[in-house]
Formats: sequence, C-alpha cells, structure tokens
Amino acid sequence: MKKFGGTSVADIERIQAVARRIKRAVDGGDEVAVVVSAMAGVTNRLVGYANAISPLHDPREYDVVVAAGEQITAGLMAMALQQLGVPARSWLAWQIRFRTDDAHGKARISGIDEADLNAAFAAGEVPVVAGFQGITDGNRITTLGRGGSDTTAVALAAALRADRCDIYTDVDGVYTTDPHIVAKARKLATITFEEMLEMASVGAKVLQTRAVELAMKYGVRLQVLSSFDDSPGTFVVGEEEVVEHELVSGVTYSRDEAKISLLQVADRPGVAAGIFGPLAEASINVDMIVQNISPAGDTTDLTFTVSEADLERAVDVIQRNREQIGFGEIRSDPGVVKVSVIGVGMRSHAGIASQMFRALAERGINIQVITTSEIKVSVLIDEAYTELAVRALHTAYGLDAR
Amino acid sequence: MKKFGGTSVADIERIQAVARRIKRAVDGGDEVAVVVSAMAGVTNRLVGYANAISPLHDPREYDVVVAAGEQITAGLMAMALQQLGVPARSWLAWQIRFRTDDAHGKARISGIDEADLNAAFAAGEVPVVAGFQGITDGNRITTLGRGGSDTTAVALAAALRADRCDIYTDVDGVYTTDPHIVAKARKLATITFEEMLEMASVGAKVLQTRAVELAMKYGVRLQVLSSFDDSPGTFVVGEEEVVEHELVSGVTYSRDEAKISLLQVADRPGVAAGIFGPLAEASINVDMIVQNISPAGDTTDLTFTVSEADLERAVDVIQRNREQIGFGEIRSDPGVVKVSVIGVGMRSHAGIASQMFRALAERGINIQVITTSEIKVSVLIDEAYTELAVRALHTAYGLDAR
Repeated sequence: MKKFGGTSVADIERIQAVARRIKRAVDGGDEVAVVVSAMAGVTNRLVGYANAISPLHDPREYDVVVAAGEQITAGLMAMALQQLGVPARSWLAWQIRFRTDDAHGKARISGIDEADLNAAFAAGEVPVVAGFQGITDGNRITTLGRGGSDTTAVALAAALRADRCDIYTDVDGVYTTDPHIVAKARKLATITFEEMLEMASVGAKVLQTRAVELAMKYGVRLQVLSSFDDSPGTFVVGEEEVVEHELVSGVTYSRDEAKISLLQVADRPGVAAGIFGPLAEASINVDMIVQNISPAGDTTDLTFTVSEADLERAVDVIQRNREQIGFGEIRSDPGVVKVSVIGVGMRSHAGIASQMFRALAERGINIQVITTSEIKVSVLIDEAYTELAVRALHTAYGLDAR
Repeated sequence: MKKFGGTSVADIERIQAVARRIKRAVDGGDEVAVVVSAMAGVTNRLVGYANAISPLHDPREYDVVVAAGEQITAGLMAMALQQLGVPARSWLAWQIRFRTDDAHGKARISGIDEADLNAAFAAGEVPVVAGFQGITDGNRITTLGRGGSDTTAVALAAALRADRCDIYTDVDGVYTTDPHIVAKARKLATITFEEMLEMASVGAKVLQTRAVELAMKYGVRLQVLSSFDDSPGTFVVGEEEVVEHELVSGVTYSRDEAKISLLQVADRPGVAAGIFGPLAEASINVDMIVQNISPAGDTTDLTFTVSEADLERAVDVIQRNREQIGFGEIRSDPGVVKVSVIGVGMRSHAGIASQMFRALAERGINIQVITTSEIKVSVLIDEAYTELAVRALHTAYGLDAR
C-alpha cells in the first residue's frame, strides 16, 4: 500500500513522478495498491466554492463536492501509470463499497469489500483508490475528515493484509525533534504507535491520529517517507517490533497554547465542574489542568490551558459565569509553550521526569504547569524559552546526532 | 425537468441565480427536477489535466476525471437551493443507476432507475442530477459525449414522464436564422423535432442531436430558453402539435465546408466506391456528392464536400489512390459555404427548391452543388455570398420579422 498526499500530487509533473516511483516498485516485484489525495490546489478551490455558496452548507453536499478532488487524482494517476506501461485503474469509494457511518465530514469506516481489489491484483493491475471518501449504507458520499486519505490507506492495508503501508508526504520521516530548531535532530528508524500518537497530540502533524490508531488496532506497519527523494523513512510499528527502546524518542513542542489562571477560587466540591462545564458546552478544549493545594484552606488557585484561538472566548465564558464559579481574579497569558518528551522507555525507567526538570532548571527555565502520561511528560513554560528548552532536552536525553 | 448548461452555471453567482429561478418554479407549484452540467471553466481544466498526462489516455479513466465536473456542480446547486430554503439533494449517475453501454466518452443510455427520484418528489425535494455521466453494468463511470447533459435531461424527463424538459442555455431560443447576419431574424415559438435535427446537422448548435432524437422517440416536449432572461423560449415538439406549419422554418448555413472536384473520371461501375472507400477508411466524412452526366460517354466529373479541417487529408488520400481511381485532374476549394432552407411544410408543397434557386439567381449567386432531403434543400455557393444568400432566402420565404 502506498499513499500519496496532496503536495505529492499537486500538479501533473508530480503525478507523473509518483507514477514513475510506483512503476519502480512494481518492476521490483511488489504488488502495489495506491491511495491518492486530491491535488492540493483542487481541494482549496472546491472548499472555496462551497463556502462561497453558504458557510453553513449541508455537510452531505459538501462531501459530494470535495470528494470530487480525490476522484480526479485517481483517474489521472491511473492514466499516468498506463502511460508508463503499468496496468492500472481507478477505484472510487462506491465502487469498492468503502462503507462508513453517516457522520459527514468526519465519517468513521464501518467496512470495506476488498474482493474487487484482490481481483485487480490477480489480474496484475495496480488499483488506484481515491482516498478520503466513503459511502453510507444509504449510498451517500462521505469524507473522513482532515488527512483522511491516511486513514483510507491504513484501512485498505488492513483489509488487504498488506505487508506495509507507505505514507508518502512532504517530510522524509519522523524526527527526534523539529530540525528547524535543533540542527542535530535525527530521523528515527522506528517509532511505536503509542509514541506517534503522543507526538501527533502535541503538534507533530506527520500522520492523522485516526490513521495511527487504526494501524495500531490492526497491526499495520506504517512507513512515513518523502515522495521527493529516495531516502528510507521512519517505520511506525508495534512496541514488540522495537528491539531496544531509547528512553526518550522525541522532544516536541506546541506553541498553540494559552494559559488561564483563576485566583482565590472557592475550594469546595463541584467548583471544577462549574468552570469546565460551561467551557465544554462552548466546545472549548481544555488541555493541562493544575490545581494548587489551598494554603489557607478555603480558597485555591486553578490554572489550565486552551488553544490560543480559544483564549478570548474562554475568558469570556468564565467571566459570564463568574457568580456561579466564585473567584477573586482571572489572569490569562498567550505567551506560553508546551514542551514534551515522549518515549515508551519511560514505562520501565524512573527518573525521566526529574531529568527533564533538572535540565530546564540548569538553563534557568521556570516550569509553570506539569502534566504526565504513561509515555510522556509535558511542561508549560514561557514561550521565549522554546528553542533553548527543546535543545537542552534533546541533548540531555542523548538524542543529538553524533 | 430543467437542465442548465456550462455557461449557465459557470460560477458561484450564476449557480445562485439558477437556484433562484428554480425556487420561483417550485414556489409556483411545479414539481421540478434539475440536471446540471459542469461549470464551464472546470471542464476545461479537467480536460487539460488529462491531455497533459497523455493525449492517448484511457477513455475509461478520462470519464472518471471529467465526470467529477458535474458532480461538483450538482453538490453546489443542492447547497444553493437549500440556502434559499428549497429542500434539495444531489444525485450522481451511480446513485440513480443511470446505466449506459461501455462506449466511454460517447456512451448510450440503456436504462434508468427512477424510483429514488420519484421518492424525492414525494418527499417534496428537488433532485439535482449530475448530467453527462452514466455507469456501465460493470459499475464504471461513462460520459455521454459533447453536450451530453441535454441527453441526460431528456432521458430523465422520459423516465419520469415529465410534462416538459426545459433546456436553459446562453441563447434564448431557436431563430429563423442567425440574428448576427439577419437583423430581422425571428425567434420561433415552436419547431418540430425533425426540423431541429436538420438544423443541428447544418451547424445550428443549440441542442445535442442525440437529445433531440431521444425526445422525438419518447415524445418529450423540449423547450430551449435562456438562463439569463425570462422571455419564453422555443418549444421543440412533435409535428402533430404544430397547428399551422410555415413552409420554411429556418435558413441555416455552414462555413465549415470544402469542395473537391475530380475531372475526367473514368465512367465505369465501382468508381464511386474506389473514391469514397479510402476516404471512409481515413475517417473522413463526405457530405454533398454530385456526379455530372458524362457528355462524351466515357468520362465524368465528380464533386463532393468534406469539412475544411479534413480537406488536406482528403486530397492526400485521393492522390495516393490516383492509379486505382483513374482521373485527369483534382481541384479543391475551401472557399465555399452550404446554405440550407428547412421546413416540414416542404413535404406537402412543391416549389420550395425552385423558389430558392430563383432567389439566389436574382442576386447573381451561382449554385455549385445541390442536395435535398424530405424537409431540407441545401446549396453550396461561394463563401463570399454567405450573408447575401441568407438574407435573400430569409426574405423570399417570408421569415422577416414584421
């Protein structure tokens, strides 16, 4: 299974380059199925049309419009392969009965009929499947949400029992951290599904989270690699496949964070619900939460983070509920960054967190909030220290390229 | 049934204007189904993509790519109707099982399942059907050829037993002749299917020929009208519906003609086959043919017309077969025009042709070739006389607007 994203098929020349790449794999004896996204510019144009007619469009009709983008690439890619002498044909969601629920715009896959694709393989043909799209039981077109073609590829790889699922993108793999910040960042040869999920959740947007979850569930070996060069990429695999774990696989950061602190909050049962209930109703996601032990016993301080885009709305919601909540003061700060270290090795090794705190303290970086999960430690710090913190941690955990 | 062509839905503003027009019909109590073409620019872009990959593309994949254009318009039009409060949804060929044969790029309709569309009507919903596209029994996407959305509309009108099929286009009806040449040209209130077919065959490109044939076969009342104003259009109907026939309904002309004359051709059996066989093999359509009675008894002269684009190739084919054919000289002339008068009234009235010849003779216009059918007389003349001839005939048959 090979999946090519929007930038990999952005124009006719790139579609032809991808076709040559597929031909090399076929000539090498591989049985290849291909999943394609829409050409980058095409999707933007279709979304623009839909928004121009109505910002509140029917999601069912929106799906009909935008799914046309993947249909176009699928047909063109099949032509480009044929042009190179590779037998190929396009397959749309309705043709392979790629079933989903009816949550238009973010549908979830319910079943795939792989018989026709297996017949195509048997006939020596490369199937080119339009990604991102599905159909409901009522035969309406759905789409799988942002980056949904990754999910299409993983689901098909699982259904076809593919040896692996190569996700071609505009980066050449998963790095220990952002190479723009740390020149010594290393491309990882392997990473576990769990680590990949944690990385995605803190801003490393290489793969769609749902695609990774699905690959984990069905044991599909993923490879992330570049469609613009031939270097090997990063394998995303089950934990059992990684022979020797590094303690920490990566250092990530997310600048899209804003901090809100409520001071002198009445320390009584139900106060957390009183704060976070109205935020949830306003569809504002809250990430890190920390509540201080109340020194005097009757009030406490409470700090949490939201995405920067939600900050103003969140403050407004809190203010409007001021009486029910009962607090002395509200402070907000968009100038913060969340830095995280991730690694399945943490499970069996104590001391990862304290190593992190020490490394930051040595550079004089103050930690404002801490949260941990089984394989991740995240801290919220002043945004000005982003690069310093990431570099310090990358070195501290021995990730620098030698 | 209302069908809107590519220029009628060329951009978002026009799609919204069409939606308002449909809403007026619905508000007036009509049960309306809509067929849409691709937005004019979208089709051109898709065709450009396909040609850039390979001029000799697989027609099956070409159909996948270009059919996306109608899909996009159908979704957008459904959104635009909903935006006006009109319940609507899009329907693609595969969703209504719009079956065709597998002649990709010019497929012929084999059957339509109208049950879902009837259910949509029953639910008070306007179905917006993607024109131009069909599916084969093997569930591959086909397209119906140039102007195929007209055919989609007529086929659906027949299947749904629609009262009529309105074809909205960028002209507001069928005229007695080209208004650019004759200021006194009149819009016809009605025209018969047969006349419409003859007009299409001589260059009046208002409706796709196949759509008219299909309408004639199933007795679908067509109306050709403008999507840009509200004037009534021209009804294309069965002969029995036209109470009083004009002798001549229209004067048309086609400049895309070239004349080839072979002089001193051996006058023996099989010579015509020897000339026109090789031309047919080269896919060159021959239109008018005239053979002079041989004066001396052993040789004759033979004149025929081809389209201008084929002239050079046709002369080349003849030259290469010179020995088998046996002729003295070949002459060719692209500077000719075919002028035709059309009318079902001719069937019952003699003298139409002689009236034509007289009108042309009075203006000193020499006739080079004549052909006739049951409801049409065509003459080939020097291209320089085009406007003069058309105006003279328009007046001679009493077609000038008063």
